[in-house]
Amino acid sequence: MALTGIHHVGIAVADLDEAIERYARLFGATVEHRERLEDQGVEAASLGVGGSRIELLAPLGDDTAVGRFLAKRGPGMHHVAFETEDVGAELARARAAGAELIDETPRRGLLGLQVGFVHPDSAGGVLAEFVGDDRARA
Amino acid sequence: MALTGIHHVGIAVADLDEAIERYARLFGATVEHRERLEDQGVEAASLGVGGSRIELLAPLGDDTAVGRFLAKRGPGMHHVAFETEDVGAELARARAAGAELIDETPRRGLLGLQVGFVHPDSAGGVLAEFVGDDRARA
Repeated sequence: MALTGIHHVGIAVADLDEAIERYARLFGATVEHRERLEDQGVEAASLGVGGSRIELLAPLGDDTAVGRFLAKRGPGMHHVAFETEDVGAELARARAAGAELIDETPRRGLLGLQVGFVHPDSAGGVLAEFVGDDRARA
Repeated sequence: MALTGIHHVGIAVADLDEAIERYARLFGATVEHRERLEDQGVEAASLGVGGSRIELLAPLGDDTAVGRFLAKRGPGMHHVAFETEDVGAELARARAAGAELIDETPRRGLLGLQVGFVHPDSAGGVLAEFVGDDRARA
């Protein structure tokens, strides 16, 4: 069991439509999915860039995790997601390696995929996500 | 001509040895290359994570770009690099699309690869890099 590679880079944005237009224009990014995740307080869009992905996250309000991130740091890179076949096993392995977890067990993220986050204090300031994605690759 | 995908995620760190140990322990990352880039004021290490890469950047002094980044924001995600066959063409295309460039023409980066940066003010707070990498993939 191990990480397959980078699944996506998450980017916090203030205006999702504006950001989609910007990343399309600058990097040829194309929207593959867009979804409101009410329980996480975000509207998210997954965009393809070549064979990779970026995920744009716009807050549904100021008092959300991404809203607070924007207020503190402004728009920009928010997290990096690593792909794995088994999110639960990676969370357990990271915890055994001394990491503080945000999610002790996998939960559902964008597209219904299993996800789990490691606290940035454990990973050198990087908010790291594990994603289980068994969809076929482009 | 277009972007192939994410080449690496760049991460600013205070202590390169400590960060290499941490990312090995948490994510199974393995060092593929390590190099001092005096003209850029960093010691950098490229690490494989599955089939992807992360690049750790430690400043050679406080008065360097990464040193100032650490002083202002602390350690964490620093840039995202997109792979392309032609860095010069991507820089020209981004400029034509309205982006402010840090590098008007390609320069040499880690491993002697051609690189060029787009200013974060143009890319929603994201420092974006184009990398030309014709090495075989793992």
